[in-house]
Amino acid sequence: MSDKPKSHGRLKIAPTLTPRALMDDTPRLANAWEARVITLFPAAFPGVLGESLTGRALDEGRWRLETVELRQFGEGKHRNVDDTPAGGGAGMVLRADVLARAIDAAAEGVPGDRGRWPLVYLSPRGRRFDQTMAHRFAACDGITLICGRFEGVDERVLEEYDIEEVSLGDFVMTGGEIAAQALLDATVRLLPGVLGNAASTEEESFSHGLLEHPQYTRPAEWRGRAIPPVLMSGHHGEIERWRRAQAEQITRARRPDLWAAYLARKGEQDKA
Amino acid sequence: MSDKPKSHGRLKIAPTLTPRALMDDTPRLANAWEARVITLFPAAFPGVLGESLTGRALDEGRWRLETVELRQFGEGKHRNVDDTPAGGGAGMVLRADVLARAIDAAAEGVPGDRGRWPLVYLSPRGRRFDQTMAHRFAACDGITLICGRFEGVDERVLEEYDIEEVSLGDFVMTGGEIAAQALLDATVRLLPGVLGNAASTEEESFSHGLLEHPQYTRPAEWRGRAIPPVLMSGHHGEIERWRRAQAEQITRARRPDLWAAYLARKGEQDKA
Repeated sequence: MSDKPKSHGRLKIAPTLTPRALMDDTPRLANAWEARVITLFPAAFPGVLGESLTGRALDEGRWRLETVELRQFGEGKHRNVDDTPAGGGAGMVLRADVLARAIDAAAEGVPGDRGRWPLVYLSPRGRRFDQTMAHRFAACDGITLICGRFEGVDERVLEEYDIEEVSLGDFVMTGGEIAAQALLDATVRLLPGVLGNAASTEEESFSHGLLEHPQYTRPAEWRGRAIPPVLMSGHHGEIERWRRAQAEQITRARRPDLWAAYLARKGEQDKA
Repeated sequence: MSDKPKSHGRLKIAPTLTPRALMDDTPRLANAWEARVITLFPAAFPGVLGESLTGRALDEGRWRLETVELRQFGEGKHRNVDDTPAGGGAGMVLRADVLARAIDAAAEGVPGDRGRWPLVYLSPRGRRFDQTMAHRFAACDGITLICGRFEGVDERVLEEYDIEEVSLGDFVMTGGEIAAQALLDATVRLLPGVLGNAASTEEESFSHGLLEHPQYTRPAEWRGRAIPPVLMSGHHGEIERWRRAQAEQITRARRPDLWAAYLARKGEQDKA
């Protein structure tokens, strides 16, 4: 791919194309996990990610978030990033050449090994994002996310850069920004030190392949509904058994697919 | 449920508990679809939803977005909304009584028929959100969304209010806000007049039960890769056939589950 523009060279002749991230002097914490997001709406970040646990972790430097504004790589005076679909049809398609320039800029200083730093396009055509994928991404050095808009991106840029397509689910959104934030939220909370109590990530939904058991808290009785007595017993063994039984029952009732996978895994473990 | 606090009565004695939405004088457009979001982070809204197509539609009054701040319904001087889980464990659980007060306030002026105005809690234990559900929500008058935080909400409030649990996917997030935004984005874009070109929603992924075909746009050749000649032929019938074949091929390769469902539906149609 020798015809790819070199970021260094290009940056020299057009310094305004430098992503915002590369111009600031914030010291980069050693080993801090980093997300780079290519988007037409950089102002929408960090959004909800700037609140609560993910926001505190961002302030503490446990992860970094950089936006790369796609618009600045657009064509002509109006910085056009899209054009009509070849063959006709509704909507607009993001141009391969424009997106390639943004990807090259976002690749600055990033390891070329996609196992250490995935390059992901959020798209309903992708593999569905799940907790296993969140763990995989959290174990990387960082990730680059491409947020599409309109009718999608020119297929050739996906092929040329061997971009991993990831889907949030079987529904269509106006753009990839919210999907990117969902992926980042689920991933960042798995980074060391982000959740106050590491036990949280082990007890919750999907960690054992089951949906989570019901939760209760004060008041002990509310509108004639009492907290299940076993939870007030102080007997940890019984509480554990009750919670596991509840998690199994809810999973079996609501998600036959997860339940079947759980039984299959359990059967293998029992045999081993 | 006669022991439920009446919103009107409660509002009379404690006017500061009125949701922000009910205090402003913005004229409500007739028939405008409305989302009410119960959240600890009202400032995170509209977020990305304020941009692009959903943002323009919001400005034009094609839909309304109201936030109900959960904190103001909290207990005591510090407005506590959560407490430790009964039976022990990590994290905190949202209190049933606190959430109930927020739900009652958000119900002000909303039809009691859940078929017209669903009451949804975003939770990984719920039914997975998909395009069919987005169409169902878009056909309602509006929706109330509850965004959880921490380890979840007290199970009793889910039972008492018969709340519909909806999941964005098999992953865990720090809260429901991003999931709510994803649900709203996918739903709002289906409302009349939100997308400039109605054809868009018919051609895209999932509308025929297939993933979308690849898209291309100018330049005609890029890094040695040409746009497929059929798309440049101007022959609409051939373009349609090529796109359908591509969509089928991608769906078969990437999503055997969708492909099986598509074949089953097609078989029934052929028989009919």
